[in-house]
Amino acid sequence: MKTMLKGIAASDGVACGRVYRLDEPDLHVSQQTITDLDYELNRFRQALEATVSEIETIKTRVNKNLGADRAQVFIAQMAMLKDRDLIGNIEHQMQDRHVNAEFAVSLVSATVEDELAALADNPYLQERLTNWRAVAKRLTAHLLGVTLPDLALVSEPVIVVTHDLIASEAVAANPQQVLGFITDAGGRTSHSSILARSLNIPAVVGTQAATHELTNGELVVVNGTQGNVMVGPTTEEVATARQTMAQRVKNQRKLEKLKHFETVSRDGVGVTLAANMGTVADLPRVVASGAEAIGLFRTEFLYLDAQHLPTEDEQFEIYRRVLEKMRPRPVVIRTLDVGGDKNLPYRTSQSEANPFMGARAIRQSLAHQQVFRSQLRALIRASAFGQLKIMFPMIATLDELRQAKAIYDDERAKLTAKRVPMGEIAVGMMVEVPAAALLADRFANEVDFMSIGTNDLIGYTLAADRTNQNVAYLYQPYHPAILRLIDRVISAGHAAGIPVAMCGEMAGDPIALPLLLGMGLDEFSMAPGTILKTRQLIRQLDAHELASLAETTVNSAGTSQEVITMVQAAVPNVLK
Amino acid sequence: MKTMLKGIAASDGVACGRVYRLDEPDLHVSQQTITDLDYELNRFRQALEATVSEIETIKTRVNKNLGADRAQVFIAQMAMLKDRDLIGNIEHQMQDRHVNAEFAVSLVSATVEDELAALADNPYLQERLTNWRAVAKRLTAHLLGVTLPDLALVSEPVIVVTHDLIASEAVAANPQQVLGFITDAGGRTSHSSILARSLNIPAVVGTQAATHELTNGELVVVNGTQGNVMVGPTTEEVATARQTMAQRVKNQRKLEKLKHFETVSRDGVGVTLAANMGTVADLPRVVASGAEAIGLFRTEFLYLDAQHLPTEDEQFEIYRRVLEKMRPRPVVIRTLDVGGDKNLPYRTSQSEANPFMGARAIRQSLAHQQVFRSQLRALIRASAFGQLKIMFPMIATLDELRQAKAIYDDERAKLTAKRVPMGEIAVGMMVEVPAAALLADRFANEVDFMSIGTNDLIGYTLAADRTNQNVAYLYQPYHPAILRLIDRVISAGHAAGIPVAMCGEMAGDPIALPLLLGMGLDEFSMAPGTILKTRQLIRQLDAHELASLAETTVNSAGTSQEVITMVQAAVPNVLK
Repeated sequence: MKTMLKGIAASDGVACGRVYRLDEPDLHVSQQTITDLDYELNRFRQALEATVSEIETIKTRVNKNLGADRAQVFIAQMAMLKDRDLIGNIEHQMQDRHVNAEFAVSLVSATVEDELAALADNPYLQERLTNWRAVAKRLTAHLLGVTLPDLALVSEPVIVVTHDLIASEAVAANPQQVLGFITDAGGRTSHSSILARSLNIPAVVGTQAATHELTNGELVVVNGTQGNVMVGPTTEEVATARQTMAQRVKNQRKLEKLKHFETVSRDGVGVTLAANMGTVADLPRVVASGAEAIGLFRTEFLYLDAQHLPTEDEQFEIYRRVLEKMRPRPVVIRTLDVGGDKNLPYRTSQSEANPFMGARAIRQSLAHQQVFRSQLRALIRASAFGQLKIMFPMIATLDELRQAKAIYDDERAKLTAKRVPMGEIAVGMMVEVPAAALLADRFANEVDFMSIGTNDLIGYTLAADRTNQNVAYLYQPYHPAILRLIDRVISAGHAAGIPVAMCGEMAGDPIALPLLLGMGLDEFSMAPGTILKTRQLIRQLDAHELASLAETTVNSAGTSQEVITMVQAAVPNVLK
Repeated sequence: MKTMLKGIAASDGVACGRVYRLDEPDLHVSQQTITDLDYELNRFRQALEATVSEIETIKTRVNKNLGADRAQVFIAQMAMLKDRDLIGNIEHQMQDRHVNAEFAVSLVSATVEDELAALADNPYLQERLTNWRAVAKRLTAHLLGVTLPDLALVSEPVIVVTHDLIASEAVAANPQQVLGFITDAGGRTSHSSILARSLNIPAVVGTQAATHELTNGELVVVNGTQGNVMVGPTTEEVATARQTMAQRVKNQRKLEKLKHFETVSRDGVGVTLAANMGTVADLPRVVASGAEAIGLFRTEFLYLDAQHLPTEDEQFEIYRRVLEKMRPRPVVIRTLDVGGDKNLPYRTSQSEANPFMGARAIRQSLAHQQVFRSQLRALIRASAFGQLKIMFPMIATLDELRQAKAIYDDERAKLTAKRVPMGEIAVGMMVEVPAAALLADRFANEVDFMSIGTNDLIGYTLAADRTNQNVAYLYQPYHPAILRLIDRVISAGHAAGIPVAMCGEMAGDPIALPLLLGMGLDEFSMAPGTILKTRQLIRQLDAHELASLAETTVNSAGTSQEVITMVQAAVPNVLK
């Protein structure tokens, strides 16, 4: 190979392919006085044509790969490029002011922004604004002679290279076009890494230098298990990589056989393996994953991806689709969890000094009850079509839980009075605030189930923001304090006769697995890609033996390293 | 009365006096072309004279009330106003550019900023820059004909009215000039409220409207117990207020008799009542407060108030002074706790998305060991002069504690080798991260004492930033989860044979007191102003009876309200 880039192993596996850089080029525009208007008009029309044809390509590919729903937006964008008023306006600016085409585009954009910003309440116009921005950007890129990347434009799967987050959405939207993923920034617990693992795409993050060193079309081998990238590999190196990839496919096939097996430990203890689901687009992957349930269906995408607040009916349709598809398997749907690092585009929110410790999730739901009630109605109506479990996020006090349940009961009573069909619904809570874990015995009496959200629970318990590189080392899932809290929640749930699940990253972690099984966790909910591997592991473990490992670890371990050592010593054959 | 302003009762007591608004006026300056230069020069010289005489007044008052140390800075400011280069430069700008005096001041300020910003490493020049800013501001105010408030300028104590935080520092610096405190913003747990309680100044916060409705010199009665402000009170209302104030003074005298009493419960259980101390200026108040120890000496002021990193010798002098003054009573000195909402002015720190969950306190100390080591050396050297206890803040893992102790041992060994005199030193930790509280049994074996920092512990355990108004209702000291953590830490400490203290706000809270006494807390460290009242309460309580109250509450209470009800039912006579 030419060189080796080192980074952080973020998502297992090896991938070999050509680099595709997803970062946006510099689209800064400056004003120039033009003397040859015809030349400039001609240049503009050529760029316009190129933009139309590019969006046409994107539309066709998206339609084919992701369905007509997702392609809809490009039809609207095409229409804008053919809107004589808009386009005519740009040409007029060039004629009247003698300015260059890209500057004329920016002048018209400013006018469009001004007009539509004043009408922020109108969802249709806001959608129009978003579309115009996308169109103007692409048009400007063509005028500047730079390339605006889009995964829908590549004809074969690629290795995505990007600085960090910006590309995550693009990757999430086009997973089949992505063989591997390399970033400059981020750590094992950053957003990109979690995404890569959930999509089962090999990834190396935190290379510091990827966007400087890698050029489009360059051949690389991404090793997401070791955390490095071979740049310009030799033929032998490519062959070895392909072998590893083939072995992985073979292992995957072996795992596939477990798809319809039950999840039972060697000594016959059964648990539920469930999938976490971020958007309804994940549903086919969840169904194919061998999941026995959906343990966490996040509903944020409904609110964050849209330009307007989703209506009750829009929500109902989506919940119904998921419940029907999974029936008779249960689906845990979590009510809206925004705030923290996710804000609703159409809700003006104050900026908070510490958003993770601010008005998040149930706190916002209780403060904006209309949105919460509309979601609950949609959920209750959808319950007729499958086995629904509703889960409230970020519960910290009994008062909050009781208030949320009272609102739910109220909406349910109203729908019952209207004879709206509905099924049986379990109502539960996330245990992700330390206070809730500490008081789990009291909460357990007032819910049908609890699900431990380890991502936030770890963050608060260690007072460490896992997205902050300065303190990422303190974000320790195996910290004995975390194990004590988890053990406490499981015991409290069982004492009250309710099941306890876990839906954080930790549920799919092989070191945590023996401990969680030993503690008696009932349901493990994880990225779909991890389910079969976890089933394979559980089938090799002895739950009764592990109960005493868990007890010893919880009582006597002092550090994360001690925990790891104890687990590795107890089940050396399984965790090789 | 004319009107009544409602707010939040933030600090007990009644005060009657005239309004003094501390907010800064608009000092925005615009450029004007002058035609009559002589007139403008004359106007400038008059403003200069007025500024000199104002700073002279401030200097004299500060010297008298707060000592020569604090007045030093005004001597430097006076010198600047007599610096012919600086002043001449302003006049030149007026002459050469025909601009108005205030604009000429802003031009010279810009030059000074530019020159000195480039020399950010030089502490002397940075101090000069800070002084210049203060001087230029006051000069500009005079030119604009507006008043720049300063508590040192009032001739009799006043009721301070302010939007929020800005004034806190001014109030802290001149407590004897402040009868009461009214703010627009903030809640019971906000910075201003904590300050007011610690200074024993009646305060009403969160009135929304105080700065709109109250004008300078207006007579008001602040009721910090009920949370309201009478504007334009009648003669009778003023008389009633004065009576309440007199009663308060009488009660205070009664309390004063307890100053030299021991702190023992009715049934003979002795505890230590200690004072929290923010700056060395608090020392006289601490000594006068009846405190049996200093339970928390925050060292941030040494770093935050200075323009440069304090030297080891500068620190040594201050620690020695405090230790000598308190001897033989122990002094707990906490190592630097910056980060979160306090950043060192001379350390460029990255901005963090959630600073409370970022690189704070011991995390910064371990990352910047030079600063930490210099502080430890100063502390070890000072230990020869009193009874020193060193405390590490924000410990979350055993690794951190061990690393901090190893650095301490290393510095101690080096000083021992040099035969530097030193005393016995206890080494302990704050328990303020939930993980540390949960693992207190393991930590207790490796420290000489633990001190529970409730302010942060509550924030992390409830995932609620107490400085954020949206979630202030979730910052619940009586949440049963908090009580369980505290109980756990105390038991763990006692099982290991070490004392357990508390140095958060909660230690001085009358509802928490019976529970903490019942749990066996050894030391209560609080604002000096609360000590005698707490001693009075403890002398009326029965620690053995309260042990069972504490046990019942910890095991069975579900909400904060239940806790309050249980405590009030158990000791109705004490908490009237």
